[in-house]
Amino acid sequence: MKVHLITVGDEILIGQITDTNSSWMARQLNLAGARISGITSVGDHEEDIEHVLDEALRQADAVLMTGGLGPTKDDITKKTLAKFFGVELEFHQPTYDRILRFFERLGRTTTPAHRQQCYMPANATLLLNKMGTAPGMWFEQNGKVIVSMPGVPYEMEYLMEHEVIPRMKRFFPGLPIAHRTILTAGEGESRIAERLEQVEDELPPHIKLAYLPNLGQVRLRLSGSLPEEQALNQELDFYAQKITEKLDSLVFGFETDRLEAAVGRLLQEQGKMLVTAESCTGGYLAHLITSIPGSSNYFKGSIIAYSNEVKMNQLKVSPQTLETYGAVSEQTVAEMVKGAVQLLEADVAVAVSGIAGPGGGSPEKPVGTIWIAVGNAERVATQRVYAGKDRLKNIEYSAVHALNFVRHFLLQEQEALRK
Amino acid sequence: MKVHLITVGDEILIGQITDTNSSWMARQLNLAGARISGITSVGDHEEDIEHVLDEALRQADAVLMTGGLGPTKDDITKKTLAKFFGVELEFHQPTYDRILRFFERLGRTTTPAHRQQCYMPANATLLLNKMGTAPGMWFEQNGKVIVSMPGVPYEMEYLMEHEVIPRMKRFFPGLPIAHRTILTAGEGESRIAERLEQVEDELPPHIKLAYLPNLGQVRLRLSGSLPEEQALNQELDFYAQKITEKLDSLVFGFETDRLEAAVGRLLQEQGKMLVTAESCTGGYLAHLITSIPGSSNYFKGSIIAYSNEVKMNQLKVSPQTLETYGAVSEQTVAEMVKGAVQLLEADVAVAVSGIAGPGGGSPEKPVGTIWIAVGNAERVATQRVYAGKDRLKNIEYSAVHALNFVRHFLLQEQEALRK
Repeated sequence: MKVHLITVGDEILIGQITDTNSSWMARQLNLAGARISGITSVGDHEEDIEHVLDEALRQADAVLMTGGLGPTKDDITKKTLAKFFGVELEFHQPTYDRILRFFERLGRTTTPAHRQQCYMPANATLLLNKMGTAPGMWFEQNGKVIVSMPGVPYEMEYLMEHEVIPRMKRFFPGLPIAHRTILTAGEGESRIAERLEQVEDELPPHIKLAYLPNLGQVRLRLSGSLPEEQALNQELDFYAQKITEKLDSLVFGFETDRLEAAVGRLLQEQGKMLVTAESCTGGYLAHLITSIPGSSNYFKGSIIAYSNEVKMNQLKVSPQTLETYGAVSEQTVAEMVKGAVQLLEADVAVAVSGIAGPGGGSPEKPVGTIWIAVGNAERVATQRVYAGKDRLKNIEYSAVHALNFVRHFLLQEQEALRK
Repeated sequence: MKVHLITVGDEILIGQITDTNSSWMARQLNLAGARISGITSVGDHEEDIEHVLDEALRQADAVLMTGGLGPTKDDITKKTLAKFFGVELEFHQPTYDRILRFFERLGRTTTPAHRQQCYMPANATLLLNKMGTAPGMWFEQNGKVIVSMPGVPYEMEYLMEHEVIPRMKRFFPGLPIAHRTILTAGEGESRIAERLEQVEDELPPHIKLAYLPNLGQVRLRLSGSLPEEQALNQELDFYAQKITEKLDSLVFGFETDRLEAAVGRLLQEQGKMLVTAESCTGGYLAHLITSIPGSSNYFKGSIIAYSNEVKMNQLKVSPQTLETYGAVSEQTVAEMVKGAVQLLEADVAVAVSGIAGPGGGSPEKPVGTIWIAVGNAERVATQRVYAGKDRLKNIEYSAVHALNFVRHFLLQEQEALRK
């Protein structure tokens, strides 16, 4: 099944937003066994949209469009689609009723623009969008499929997952493709490739291994295609197992798991409560941890000590330590951990202090220097990592390393108990 | 001048990387007076590249391609271009000399692939790439321009800035295009459209207004095109001013500004230090604030009170309040603000407590119920907002509303001082 993606919106052509929808969609569609034949971004102009749609349908079996479904005047995708299919726009009462109920619940009134939003091309099958007011639209023509979705990422993602991909799988039954994803943290791509050289040589031609690195984590994806689905799944399980054994504690999970969830499971297994004491990450580490539903079972809270005052007054870092070694030092993060464990009555604490940039660097401590500590009332482990020059990437990278450091600390605790 | 952008590479079609080059290029080209007629991503397949290039040249005056110039086997842009123009690939000695010198300096030796990289289509004008080994290529055909650049972002950016844009300006002296972006928070798209109906009706045909909504914020973009650049800029300023007046305090900034930066400026102007006390946002609000370089000038830190214990012990929320009204209540967030101001010796504090979901909802307090409070030692203002069902979106939405609530609090303080 060949799929073409079209993104509609002037905001992309003037570079005001980056088209992140297409890469998300491409990833999901690849997992579902589709091949993306092309991605096109087009402005809010009727003829341009028509032309691109026409071109795309010549090459692909399905065309997925995002954007241009909002209530304001500049959105013309629906009008263009009606014209393209030679049908009228019809008022869709159930959609209007949903919008009315939605606004009623918010205690707000609708505007005429919301009513306008409920006119749909007569041949559209509407796809329920539980994340917003504009439904998705599914069209079939000459054995091909055209889908139109809102451009708001979480609305598009909801529709893709719950409506579009399941329908496409039914519409285009094809050769079984299956995947296994192994998630690692703490080592780079080339180092992992070295350890997997032998396994890679053993892989049969119908199974491929891809490396997907991202900020301190590398996902390894095995993809295979065979007529016999059961045999394929057995083979994939076999190689996933082999890779997992080779990489040992670098592996923190599988498929769509997340490092913060893996840390959460270890904490819950060990019945421990975690807290964070953050300087340069400024709350991002706590945010990652609390992005997991149910994290209140193992996460108590944090002290974000952005100023030295908070480091001293709340976390009891000694003024001498700050004076002698600086806020970005092994000594400071170790004291932050001890202070946080005591103040918040926690079983484990993790502390991060670093120079996120762009300012604040020095020859001895350049931008990107990060100190991390993890510990409890008995022991504290510390680690220094070097990130890069970009402030936001440095914050994310530090948080990922801190999480992975907590994971190893908890694994060691487990190991020590076993002995 | 109409420009079409083409990105070459299988890694984009499988969603392994997001095409950030195109949005960067689109921004720069728009500033240089070009209009982007479309953006296409295509895989490393000769026929596909040829087809897309052919299509693009039919619509646009210039086609800028990135990607597919590396030394590995899958990169075939150059071969395809030579075939497209009906010319041979010729060995380019100066490029090879540069590569040899480059590797010599690094103390490394070249591989045969590097020599291969020096074959160029005979009709190419080479563009010196000071950031890497692959030069850019400039072609002219029938009054149109085709450019091919490496896909590595900083190499492409260097070539665009120093070679491509200056050459294009000389080749296509043309019609200026200009934009103004007005940033708002706190109202939805349709409500804003209502307030701007009259202004929209007054807009001349060569000026367009677009609405770009995203989680509690709406960006308004005016775009215009006129032969007289000065007149165009005056008109755009005039309408941007009108819109800003109509929307009053909904507007927090212009162009690429951010809400968290706008709040930071107000704090700095008023010489105040902010802290946060977060429950459901779990550090995300502090993260947004500290994502701005220099935020340590006006941000001291936070108490992330994910457990009631931390709310009581650190923030001094009374057990009676938690018992009677619950952790997600007006009374609790108000006490969190008072506690944070006192504990962290802050001038302003903001507190958030809500039900992010998926669990924890009840008929009286469904998932998505969020309480926010902002205040200082003298007064505390509170606000309830309803977000949606998605945990992460609820966290982001709450944080944006909390920031905007801080902004309004600071604006009121300013107003009170003036009186």
